[in-house]
Amino acid sequence: MATTLKGQPLDRPTLDTLCRRRLFYTPSFEIYGGISGFFDYGPPGCALQANIIDIWRKHFVLEEDMLEVDCTILTPHDVLKTSGHVDKFADWMCKDPKTGEIFRADHLVEEVIEARLKGDKEARLGEKKGAEGGVQETAKDVEENTSKEEKKRKKKVKNIMAVKLPDELVKEYESVLAKIDNYDGDELGDLIKKYDIRNPATGGELNPPLAFNLMFQTSIGPTGGVAGYLRPETAQGQFLNFSKLYEYNNLRMPFASASIGKSFRNEISPRQGLLRVREFLMAEIEHFVDPEDKAHPRFSEVFNVKLSFLPKGVQQSGSTEVIEKTIGEAVKEGMVDNETLGYFLARIQLFLLRIGIDKNKIRFRQHMNNEMAHYASDCWDAELFNSYGWIECVGCADRSAYDLSVHSKVTGQELIVRETLAEPVKKDEWEVDIEKKIFGPKFKKDAKIVEEALLALNQAQREAAAKTLQTEGVLGVSLPDGRSVEVDVTTVNITLRSKIINVREFTPNVIEPSFGIGRILYTLIEHSFWFRPEDVNRGVLSFPPSVAPTKVLLVPLSSNAQFTPIVNALSAKIRKVGISNKIDASSASIGKRYSRNDELGTPFGITVDFQTVKDGSVTLRERDGTRQVRGSQEEVVEVLRKLVEGEIGWEGTGLKEFVGQAVDDE
Amino acid sequence: MATTLKGQPLDRPTLDTLCRRRLFYTPSFEIYGGISGFFDYGPPGCALQANIIDIWRKHFVLEEDMLEVDCTILTPHDVLKTSGHVDKFADWMCKDPKTGEIFRADHLVEEVIEARLKGDKEARLGEKKGAEGGVQETAKDVEENTSKEEKKRKKKVKNIMAVKLPDELVKEYESVLAKIDNYDGDELGDLIKKYDIRNPATGGELNPPLAFNLMFQTSIGPTGGVAGYLRPETAQGQFLNFSKLYEYNNLRMPFASASIGKSFRNEISPRQGLLRVREFLMAEIEHFVDPEDKAHPRFSEVFNVKLSFLPKGVQQSGSTEVIEKTIGEAVKEGMVDNETLGYFLARIQLFLLRIGIDKNKIRFRQHMNNEMAHYASDCWDAELFNSYGWIECVGCADRSAYDLSVHSKVTGQELIVRETLAEPVKKDEWEVDIEKKIFGPKFKKDAKIVEEALLALNQAQREAAAKTLQTEGVLGVSLPDGRSVEVDVTTVNITLRSKIINVREFTPNVIEPSFGIGRILYTLIEHSFWFRPEDVNRGVLSFPPSVAPTKVLLVPLSSNAQFTPIVNALSAKIRKVGISNKIDASSASIGKRYSRNDELGTPFGITVDFQTVKDGSVTLRERDGTRQVRGSQEEVVEVLRKLVEGEIGWEGTGLKEFVGQAVDDE
Repeated sequence: MATTLKGQPLDRPTLDTLCRRRLFYTPSFEIYGGISGFFDYGPPGCALQANIIDIWRKHFVLEEDMLEVDCTILTPHDVLKTSGHVDKFADWMCKDPKTGEIFRADHLVEEVIEARLKGDKEARLGEKKGAEGGVQETAKDVEENTSKEEKKRKKKVKNIMAVKLPDELVKEYESVLAKIDNYDGDELGDLIKKYDIRNPATGGELNPPLAFNLMFQTSIGPTGGVAGYLRPETAQGQFLNFSKLYEYNNLRMPFASASIGKSFRNEISPRQGLLRVREFLMAEIEHFVDPEDKAHPRFSEVFNVKLSFLPKGVQQSGSTEVIEKTIGEAVKEGMVDNETLGYFLARIQLFLLRIGIDKNKIRFRQHMNNEMAHYASDCWDAELFNSYGWIECVGCADRSAYDLSVHSKVTGQELIVRETLAEPVKKDEWEVDIEKKIFGPKFKKDAKIVEEALLALNQAQREAAAKTLQTEGVLGVSLPDGRSVEVDVTTVNITLRSKIINVREFTPNVIEPSFGIGRILYTLIEHSFWFRPEDVNRGVLSFPPSVAPTKVLLVPLSSNAQFTPIVNALSAKIRKVGISNKIDASSASIGKRYSRNDELGTPFGITVDFQTVKDGSVTLRERDGTRQVRGSQEEVVEVLRKLVEGEIGWEGTGLKEFVGQAVDDE
Repeated sequence: MATTLKGQPLDRPTLDTLCRRRLFYTPSFEIYGGISGFFDYGPPGCALQANIIDIWRKHFVLEEDMLEVDCTILTPHDVLKTSGHVDKFADWMCKDPKTGEIFRADHLVEEVIEARLKGDKEARLGEKKGAEGGVQETAKDVEENTSKEEKKRKKKVKNIMAVKLPDELVKEYESVLAKIDNYDGDELGDLIKKYDIRNPATGGELNPPLAFNLMFQTSIGPTGGVAGYLRPETAQGQFLNFSKLYEYNNLRMPFASASIGKSFRNEISPRQGLLRVREFLMAEIEHFVDPEDKAHPRFSEVFNVKLSFLPKGVQQSGSTEVIEKTIGEAVKEGMVDNETLGYFLARIQLFLLRIGIDKNKIRFRQHMNNEMAHYASDCWDAELFNSYGWIECVGCADRSAYDLSVHSKVTGQELIVRETLAEPVKKDEWEVDIEKKIFGPKFKKDAKIVEEALLALNQAQREAAAKTLQTEGVLGVSLPDGRSVEVDVTTVNITLRSKIINVREFTPNVIEPSFGIGRILYTLIEHSFWFRPEDVNRGVLSFPPSVAPTKVLLVPLSSNAQFTPIVNALSAKIRKVGISNKIDASSASIGKRYSRNDELGTPFGITVDFQTVKDGSVTLRERDGTRQVRGSQEEVVEVLRKLVEGEIGWEGTGLKEFVGQAVDDE
């Protein structure tokens, strides 16, 4: 169950209402009825996002001298065809042929099975009111979406009854849920048939799952001839610029590029608020590394960082029990593939902690083999726990040489690193020599593919083929189209030759940490939220000062005109030391203004009262414990600077504690 | 003619080559052949952009407590239908029916006429080599685009011959060029016919201009039922959130929202590098103000700021002579419509100067009446002069109540301000009373439109109608569909009544300063560029420290291992005071490394040499004059901080001048 910062049960609708009231975020185009999957950030959300990005940039880009680039969102078809997105960036959808409704297949299976398991649990508890309980839970569900589909979904969930299931089936269902991210379309279709999963609203049967490409398509230029997409990730722009970046980096390896920008997914039916949106901010790193040396020079700095791992073996067994160990051990014993990947996993956790994510709500889940792209050698998601469950917020994959290789192959441009060897190396290699004058006329129009098939043989195959040619005089060659032909010694020779190698050429491998900023931001809001026990309606967002949208609120005691110049001058003074502040000179009571402030997550408040007019002193208040100290404006500004920069904590202010409320002594 | 920072003739291809070599920007998807109108920013361009944005945010958002929002790029059809973009956001294109080529009509007319005028000038100068001169100019043209259209364009320009034109025609041509932005499709069609403008490559006749909508269209969701566009500006998201922002601002007026983000225009045939791209970063402010009081509380602060104005009257007369005066005078005499608009014009200039734009290359051009949207009450562009001519980089329009009114009308949502009046006001108003019981049966299905027509009468019309009803007993009412009906006193009464008004309701007007960041960035690069007289090949980008991508380069004298720990520690020290720095430990000579640095626009350099190993002192160098001083690392870091923050100039370092080169004394 999701809890607040203080371990209280977290009621999502309450928090959601707070966030919308304070304009952290709001559904886009709401006066037009809205479209699910789109949110705008208001002033505090926008500032929170900017601060998270600022820390991200310092933590990764500046700390490691990464090469930040800003590439276009619009991407032509050919690039995304090569990357595989045109063919494979899809979810499975099922259509109800009668109503025309469309369901995302895996989500539907998940929801229906979860509901059935819930019904089973209630039946087992012997609770008569099980069904009504389900309804209550549904009614409490956050009102995030008023679309037709959403209403139908709610109706559907209401239909679930408390029915006890056979023990065997419960086990099956649990195993399906543990592997729900790993089924392809056929498998989802089989599950839907096997478990008789139907349109929950109507009971109608569904068509088999079809792939739906998640990219938004458009057309570039006036002729309509150039198809383009909104990028689904920022990575491709970085890959396409590899050679330029490598040169910019003075041909030094390894190095990383980084990019922060919007990406897009045309989700089938987005729910889950900020967690599943059609337009989102990503921050991605592409760390280019020698495939034969994935050690990381700074790995020792993170060796002892402890992470919670959920490796693939554990998941395969149907369990979700995490294993705690240091990243050093995890790499040593091979659970995490290599040092560079491990280095980033640790750095990801350090970043998450730095912005205020709850350490106990982070786990690193390894992709299972069938979930991982075929070329990836290892992949881990940093999952954060919030009221929606464990949610992937950062991915970190070793993508091998895949991306650079495919783009290079299609474009004919080299995307490689040339490394001059310290000492030349002698190397024996089997080489294929073709007697073109005889070979060409013999194979005619097939000559090219036969030659390609021969050149595609690796060293071991060439050695075997040389032997065959030597002993038999002829060699059978299989062609890609299934035919096979024979070559003989008059046309082909395979010979072992010694070569001196001075330069080593290789396609770098890529380690890719990829951050969903919106998901992290939303989870941070949940992890920072709590309410004062004396007043459950008074929500507080305890952001660390570094990410808080506003660092300090200036509160004149009343609307008395004497306060105005003092407050304005103080605001300018605080801004001068680089600290964002806001003045709240509204007529609301001090308490109400501070409460508004709690909801905005502003860590400090300064009150200007009649004592200030007399002696210049002001009160400084901290949000979490509502404790106050008093000092001169100069003292308070300096203390504030130290607090915001993390040099001191509240205990270190050195100022006199101030008890009681400032009083308007007019 | 465009000039460098030092008044040298600016050769654009040289600068462009520098920018690409140093990866300020690079054509997107270049390994796939590229698509015109798309550029990626490499590390220095990305940092330059971030610094410009950072200053923009401080100069506008923080300084005036604006409400920054981050709204979605994808925008549904209905929103942009209301805003007018679906119907009117278009350029005129002409198709050559034989070749299928598409030309942007106004650009074609402009180019052909400019070429003819050039031919005329050459003929008049009696220069025999006129035609070849044209070719040379073309060959020098920046190689920004290798598309087919571009090649054809070049071919076309070559065809222009030195032909003397009648004096009268030259005048006509000049007048057409002065008004080229103001022609609609029919007028462009007339010009094309009148001046016999054809496909310059083939001489083929063109079809009449057709409107081409410049928005990229896509489809949202799996059903294909929801049409959407990539936003052409960030403004609409701000308008749609008006009521939420007004409430967030505690119902105080005036206030401004602001937004920084990508926008898109599907340009017909983009050339001109970063100036005309299909995807670009905008920064926009929507300042909401009382239509009856457009005074600005801080106008006095900018009253004496001098601007160069090009008002519409001057343009209409065919001249481009600017008028210099203070914004205070310009508003006083009514040249600029109101104080708020004037305040922003001055603030825009102050911003441009702050980032390093050349004061002599800024002018404010007023929109002419036929160029301005019908609802706008005044509009000025800040135009910057660069090698492409005078280019609109910031627009600043008073958009009246247009946007809020149209969205309110379509959605039925109120987008208004309610102001409690200090004293209630008595107001006499003519009210229309309808006797529904008789009215309804009488007009049947027309009842509603007749009623609407009556209620649409303004106060003066109502007074007249009341008189007619009183004297004639009947009143003719014109319906929107052209019919007219009669009402009489049994169904309608129009009466003057006194009302007490406590609350004033109004739709705010909007003043909209809108910045094209890419255009400003490119122009800033041109304005910062120069070359050392002793070496024309050694380009320098003299960015002010605040916008420079990197503030200081750390240069160890050689690759001697003794320097490494010193340089690394110094880098960390400098980073700690918040100053971005890079280490260049490559094996290139000091001179070569500093020259690379000049091209990247890094204002300062620190050399670590053998003297440093002995006594810790380092050399600090400034880019523009290559002067050097020497001091302890502590002294130099402190001086550096003051230089970067603008507290001191180079004369104020107080450190000992250092003459001659650091020498490796090993």
